[in-house]
Amino acid sequence: MSKQRVLTGITTTGTPHLGNYVGAIRPAIAASEDPSLESFYFLADYHALIKCQEAERVEQSRKEIAATWLALGLNTDNAVFYRQSDIAQIPELCWLLNCMAAKGLMNRAHAYKAAVAANEEAGEDPDYGVTMGLYNYPVLMAADILMFNANKVPVGRDQIQHIEMARDIAARFNHHYGEHFALPEAMVDDKVSVLNGLDGRKMSKSYNNTIPLFLPEKQLKKHINKIKTNLLEPGEPKDPEGSTVFQIWEAFASDEQAAQMRDQFAEGIAWGEAKRQLFELINNQIGEARERYYELMERPADIEEILQLGAARAREHSEPFMERLRSAVGLRPMA
Amino acid sequence: MSKQRVLTGITTTGTPHLGNYVGAIRPAIAASEDPSLESFYFLADYHALIKCQEAERVEQSRKEIAATWLALGLNTDNAVFYRQSDIAQIPELCWLLNCMAAKGLMNRAHAYKAAVAANEEAGEDPDYGVTMGLYNYPVLMAADILMFNANKVPVGRDQIQHIEMARDIAARFNHHYGEHFALPEAMVDDKVSVLNGLDGRKMSKSYNNTIPLFLPEKQLKKHINKIKTNLLEPGEPKDPEGSTVFQIWEAFASDEQAAQMRDQFAEGIAWGEAKRQLFELINNQIGEARERYYELMERPADIEEILQLGAARAREHSEPFMERLRSAVGLRPMA
Repeated sequence: MSKQRVLTGITTTGTPHLGNYVGAIRPAIAASEDPSLESFYFLADYHALIKCQEAERVEQSRKEIAATWLALGLNTDNAVFYRQSDIAQIPELCWLLNCMAAKGLMNRAHAYKAAVAANEEAGEDPDYGVTMGLYNYPVLMAADILMFNANKVPVGRDQIQHIEMARDIAARFNHHYGEHFALPEAMVDDKVSVLNGLDGRKMSKSYNNTIPLFLPEKQLKKHINKIKTNLLEPGEPKDPEGSTVFQIWEAFASDEQAAQMRDQFAEGIAWGEAKRQLFELINNQIGEARERYYELMERPADIEEILQLGAARAREHSEPFMERLRSAVGLRPMA
Repeated sequence: MSKQRVLTGITTTGTPHLGNYVGAIRPAIAASEDPSLESFYFLADYHALIKCQEAERVEQSRKEIAATWLALGLNTDNAVFYRQSDIAQIPELCWLLNCMAAKGLMNRAHAYKAAVAANEEAGEDPDYGVTMGLYNYPVLMAADILMFNANKVPVGRDQIQHIEMARDIAARFNHHYGEHFALPEAMVDDKVSVLNGLDGRKMSKSYNNTIPLFLPEKQLKKHINKIKTNLLEPGEPKDPEGSTVFQIWEAFASDEQAAQMRDQFAEGIAWGEAKRQLFELINNQIGEARERYYELMERPADIEEILQLGAARAREHSEPFMERLRSAVGLRPMA
């Protein structure tokens, strides 16, 4: 049997924070080392255009995200790492799939339904402010997945629906044109670590409570010092449960280190000292990557070269496969 | 001032009939000779996938239509003649425009509204049987037009809305990203000749009353003999007004020939004789093209070569322009 193909899309908006790192980036980078998988990782920059109409922000974000993943050690010898917009076959496949996708399916997409609900609540036209990009986004995502016949797509719970849509569209294509597509499956990891942010709620850009991953050292220290704690004095025993400091500690610590901190909490470690140790722990783990990150950000041509190598490898799949699909639908050259 | 750019899309479904020839093909081919225009003619085969899921029919139709236009003398030295599916930039631009197009705009498209109305009448879900291809088709058409910055698009009245949508999407893109697109204008020729069919109604595939353009000679004669006439005997004066035989005659005749036939009608020409003369007139005009058509159909590689030359010329525009558009939205290579 051939290897499992795993495809991971990386949204190219926003600045990665510790929560993204622990919940998504770190496990994905670990998976990129797995020689038993054929892994595809791509920067989803066509998707970014749905949300962002500022060219400079799109460009800056693509650069930051690529540099982040590379600096953290994404294994680009094993995994294929490319930029969506370098694969001309993807928008073409998107059109072929448009012709197969039921409009009714898109009406049920969560993101679209949420936009409609918000409009209705505001007394607006249901489609107010909705672009065709937003509406069509599940079809583009299906093209991303089906282009490489990925079997497995690691996603959060909120994305399961999109994988089901991709399956539906693929099955319909196969029904009309023969078996061309593998039916992808969502791979949901319910043990994904969700970090809390500075204020104790889930760390999220929308709560403005994040600790960006590659803050300069001093800034990182400052941010960690701002993590909300209770008012217990040094010497008073502290409960690790419900403590954001401890929760973040645990996400970076070995089992042994976690046990040690648990003991220190029981012994009444001062919050300042706990935060100092947390800073050291994180800083030690990401310090080298941070240095590589800033180096890479100064050498965008190097990032570009890596992405071009990845694109060439991706096209080894997408070009012949697209030829096959074009034949299947009736777009062959005449002869 | 630079030349006007005129873009004509050719749907690649169905077999061209005399009505198509007189109403659309003949004037378009005449326009292809006009050295004062930069003309683009393309086979709209991505659009064909919306309606037809049979690969062989799509392929056969593309071949027939290309052979028809070439046989009739489309000037491919002056005009750029290409196949939509050979221009990889078109589906890519379609995605960029998706991100600019308001979904509400698509809700107003005639073809979509007609499908919804039919579903509602049948008590079905409004989107029953509607694909994203049908729904998204005005955006693809906008990409066809804007890709070449066409100023003028000759269309029938039923297509004016699509040109307005393309203008709307182009204006929105220009607003967000700077002035990249010319705003296209519909060119509606209200003097377009509409031929009647065998039964006297408008010649149309849906009425099953057509005279296919390149019928073999005997078949053409037979079809013309089936044109409905009144029961007036030879020798009885006949009224050219309301006579399909005369109407088709006029569409192919010089002014002088038209006047002569008018006289013959007044003199009571027999219907059989009038039809015989009509057959001769048409057969003389299209006979050579018909021969070229059947020759071309036997040499699809020759058609392919012409289309590839056209595609290369089209890409001289689409490739650099797409680079510019990619830069505008933030998809430049890093450097």
